[in-house]
Amino acid sequence: MKHNQATRRDFLSTTVSAGIAAGMANGGFFESPLHANETKKLGVALVGLGSLSTNQIAPGLLHSSHCKLAAIVTGTPAKESVWAAKYGIAKDHIYNYESFEKIASDDSIDIVYVVLPNSMHAEFTIRAAKAGKHVLCEKPMANTAEECREMIAACKKADRKLAIGYRCQYEPHHLYCMNLAKTKELGAIKHIEAGFGFKIGDPTQWRLKKKLAGGGALMDVGIYALQACRYLTGEEPVSVIAQETKTDAVKFAEVDESIAWMMKFPSGVVAHCTTTYSLNGINRFHATTENGYIRMDPAYSYNDNRLETARGTSRGETKLAQVDQFATEMDEFAKCILENKPSKVSGEEGLKDMLVVEAIYDSIKTGASVRVVA
Amino acid sequence: MKHNQATRRDFLSTTVSAGIAAGMANGGFFESPLHANETKKLGVALVGLGSLSTNQIAPGLLHSSHCKLAAIVTGTPAKESVWAAKYGIAKDHIYNYESFEKIASDDSIDIVYVVLPNSMHAEFTIRAAKAGKHVLCEKPMANTAEECREMIAACKKADRKLAIGYRCQYEPHHLYCMNLAKTKELGAIKHIEAGFGFKIGDPTQWRLKKKLAGGGALMDVGIYALQACRYLTGEEPVSVIAQETKTDAVKFAEVDESIAWMMKFPSGVVAHCTTTYSLNGINRFHATTENGYIRMDPAYSYNDNRLETARGTSRGETKLAQVDQFATEMDEFAKCILENKPSKVSGEEGLKDMLVVEAIYDSIKTGASVRVVA
Repeated sequence: MKHNQATRRDFLSTTVSAGIAAGMANGGFFESPLHANETKKLGVALVGLGSLSTNQIAPGLLHSSHCKLAAIVTGTPAKESVWAAKYGIAKDHIYNYESFEKIASDDSIDIVYVVLPNSMHAEFTIRAAKAGKHVLCEKPMANTAEECREMIAACKKADRKLAIGYRCQYEPHHLYCMNLAKTKELGAIKHIEAGFGFKIGDPTQWRLKKKLAGGGALMDVGIYALQACRYLTGEEPVSVIAQETKTDAVKFAEVDESIAWMMKFPSGVVAHCTTTYSLNGINRFHATTENGYIRMDPAYSYNDNRLETARGTSRGETKLAQVDQFATEMDEFAKCILENKPSKVSGEEGLKDMLVVEAIYDSIKTGASVRVVA
Repeated sequence: MKHNQATRRDFLSTTVSAGIAAGMANGGFFESPLHANETKKLGVALVGLGSLSTNQIAPGLLHSSHCKLAAIVTGTPAKESVWAAKYGIAKDHIYNYESFEKIASDDSIDIVYVVLPNSMHAEFTIRAAKAGKHVLCEKPMANTAEECREMIAACKKADRKLAIGYRCQYEPHHLYCMNLAKTKELGAIKHIEAGFGFKIGDPTQWRLKKKLAGGGALMDVGIYALQACRYLTGEEPVSVIAQETKTDAVKFAEVDESIAWMMKFPSGVVAHCTTTYSLNGINRFHATTENGYIRMDPAYSYNDNRLETARGTSRGETKLAQVDQFATEMDEFAKCILENKPSKVSGEEGLKDMLVVEAIYDSIKTGASVRVVA
């Protein structure tokens, strides 16, 4: 409760116009019917204890109102004692990939959060659902649209919720932008530029292995820009046209290094997108509206994202509260479970992105425009 | 002299770093070896007295150090007396399209500035060269690359200079950006987004007639974004891939309304470009460098362009002197004539843009990537 109150207060104390703030509050995000002290926190089993789990998700869970770290699943025995000590996890809540199915009888676990290399997302989502657990799966949802469909079907069959780790959809600046887009306060969005990339380090990491990662920059970070275009327009792209650039054929022998693509939306909006594993500094979107623009730069960072809007020649920065995107994401998923409603970042949402990703890869192969088919 | 001094002083009094400012001064642009009071001004015959001539070029000539309005050529008799009175032009320096060749014996005319609809650029450039005059021709240079080649050949044969009205190449903020790109002070440029468009009014104007305009938004304003990418990278694009969007099939029955295209450069830089006749607010470029970015927004206006650069997370606006872009363009052309050196915005430069424009139109037709062939 404290966290939500603080967020809302900070949020409302900014330069947000009353209309927009009211619109967002009415949207339900900042008005939680839940009270942490009235309900037990849901237990989360973290599967995969890499950098994201270590540095973002586990610390984020400490700030969650409705979730707590209940169990860990790791393929690295050395990590067990470290995590057990740090987070007070008893031995009978520690699993490995072989003993994973035993979570079925661990009542402390309500949610399995899959933070494994992309190629393992489908398998562990399906195994978790079969074990009777709700699943929060990191992005990209899977390696292929076909896998996404299998994950959705498995969760449906098990009557479990499925959500994808699209943390930006819980970030106040992004929410503010979505609301600006929806209310057309600056006019309808007519054109978007969006991109996300970074200079990748260690050449031996799993992200550069096709079998583990499925793809390269596009699936890892390009998907943020892709998502932003979809939730800003509120539309699904009709077609994409893409091209790849490779400057290091050794390091990027298996996956894409840089991809530039255009997406055409039903309303006529064209989005120019970019992703790369070889350059820091592309972390933004710029949506041109009829009367101005909405720009975030940086847009997809864990914190310190910056939002600038313009109406005609009048420009200004809008500073909103910083939230722990992972804590908020988990709290919202907990609410979906407790209230039995679908997540806004559902498996179907992840599938939609994957259909576009596949169309982009197809376009690179053919050198021509490719229709996105649901 | 006065004008150049003022420009230089204002320029150097800004937040420009000493190194960059020195680099630009050494580049020769702000250090003119000419002195207006030591040489006679060159006479300019303005051909086509539409809005650009009326509101920008003729007033610009009043601020020129090395040029003066000497004659007019118009197809509208009613304009003759208005211009004669306003600019003190005697009857024997007023021509129409039929009497145009008589300029050959008018010694008050050194330069013919062609400001006609695009489809007339080639004809009047060639006629002017044959009449023994130097030619400054508005952009786009012509309707086709073939016409550009004929114009270049005609001026070469007549031993006359030819320059294209790329005014941004004389705008201090653009020059500053070009220098930043060249010196790599923020690292090499790795990615560009650029676009220029506006909401076109009167549906009966020549810009919407294929026969007069050659094309639509791309040839009229998209060419600014195209040029910016070329002079920022210092490279010629290898290939383009483009798509068109038409929301008003009646108004834009003959020419392109909106085009989005990507250009790939030899260094691996990809430029995402946009042009439109149906939206104000896209008037910018954002070049991501290894260590930051260079952004102008607005970028291609007659004045009040805005430049922002970033090094890492440190961002700042750089304010430079406002100049009359047309006066400066004409002064620089006058210097080329008097010093017998080629213009940096030569006919060859115009041809290079037109080759890209043609590749873009080809890509729209084929839906595939098209190589740009010189």
